[in-house]
Amino acid sequence: MPERDHSAAIGPIYLRVRDHIADQIEQGLLQPNSRLPSERVLAESNNTTRVTARLALAQLEAEGRIYRSNRRGWFVSPPRLVYNPTEDYSFSENVMAQGRTPATETLEVTPTEVTAWLASKTGLAEGDSLVRLRRRRQVDGRPVLVENIYLNARRLPGIERFDFNRSLWKLLREHYGLELVRKQIEMFPTALIDPQAEALGVTAGTAGLYVTRCSRDQDGCFVEFDEEFWLHDTLSIQVEVG
Amino acid sequence: MPERDHSAAIGPIYLRVRDHIADQIEQGLLQPNSRLPSERVLAESNNTTRVTARLALAQLEAEGRIYRSNRRGWFVSPPRLVYNPTEDYSFSENVMAQGRTPATETLEVTPTEVTAWLASKTGLAEGDSLVRLRRRRQVDGRPVLVENIYLNARRLPGIERFDFNRSLWKLLREHYGLELVRKQIEMFPTALIDPQAEALGVTAGTAGLYVTRCSRDQDGCFVEFDEEFWLHDTLSIQVEVG
Repeated sequence: MPERDHSAAIGPIYLRVRDHIADQIEQGLLQPNSRLPSERVLAESNNTTRVTARLALAQLEAEGRIYRSNRRGWFVSPPRLVYNPTEDYSFSENVMAQGRTPATETLEVTPTEVTAWLASKTGLAEGDSLVRLRRRRQVDGRPVLVENIYLNARRLPGIERFDFNRSLWKLLREHYGLELVRKQIEMFPTALIDPQAEALGVTAGTAGLYVTRCSRDQDGCFVEFDEEFWLHDTLSIQVEVG
Repeated sequence: MPERDHSAAIGPIYLRVRDHIADQIEQGLLQPNSRLPSERVLAESNNTTRVTARLALAQLEAEGRIYRSNRRGWFVSPPRLVYNPTEDYSFSENVMAQGRTPATETLEVTPTEVTAWLASKTGLAEGDSLVRLRRRRQVDGRPVLVENIYLNARRLPGIERFDFNRSLWKLLREHYGLELVRKQIEMFPTALIDPQAEALGVTAGTAGLYVTRCSRDQDGCFVEFDEEFWLHDTLSIQVEVG
């Protein structure tokens, strides 16, 4: 957790309280998913007010070091899932390779059609047929992302009848003989609103990471456009060059 | 600006006000860097209260669509700078290639040494000599990032005497015959605190994107570790695969 400024030992009191808690996390005194002391206890042990303790907690939350769980208090965030956009693995494979447990729930499967926005993303014509798949994915039992996937219905006849609580890429490979070889990926920070925030169990306005992925087959034919809304503290994007 | 959920036409009033303003931005009725109407006018024209208008503005800010400028009101965010971590260009080259104007200010140059944290990042031994360079970079006159660069003093003798208000990579190439061929890059959302927030002219807690880059030369020798703090609405990470 390196984003702390290691050169600055001064500053407002709430940042000193934050540094103190961050140190305890870095040193392993507070383990992932363990509960933090109450605001009252934190205020007392840091010799400050509850208002200041709350500011420190809000800062740590915004940095992704702690998270709040429904009225049960504050918890230490588990390590971020590492995601390398240049590598070719599914969500499930990636999660398992990091010794963690993935889960996928299908929330909705609906026929839809290409809007102006999707036409600009996919190269299809407005009005073309799509199947829209909405899923929620978990790591170690915690929802980390909700996604809207737009599938090319003409390229994937009968796709809406499959079970989607599994790897979509495997399904495309096994049932349609498809390899998604060309991908355009875009990522930037955003704020989650409903229905995404609701699906992830957080309040509207919570920080998130927005990821889109447009995938084509061997012939450059559009297959799927995936729009993912991640909780901001769950993902670390890592790339190696050279 | 695609993160809006195109399937949801219902929801709380502030989100409808947000959609209305977002539509005006997408349709070009509100141009980048132009000023939004006042909260009072927005409330009246949307037939709602100023409290609701303010919620809509906060949401648009969190999504990176608008930004606040010191007591002068709300403005439409300019397009995000596109950054492809797999490509090999400097900040300045990248900004200019997108038809925009870069600027770099050196804030500080100080000798320092490798801490435990930097040892884990660089592979150097604790206590080894570094030069720490702190810079602020702008796009079209707006500060977008502040960075701490740790340079390998042994590999770069005399580095502290150069002018850093320019491309560091070009300097390394021209004066040390160095090409940075191996890079490890990591990126995740965070919240900006001081001294970063202050250097960028935003309040502590503002959303940011944290980027680190560890660069080595042809022989795998550590050259520089760069830690960048970007305003959350200024960057879009884009990668093409295949």
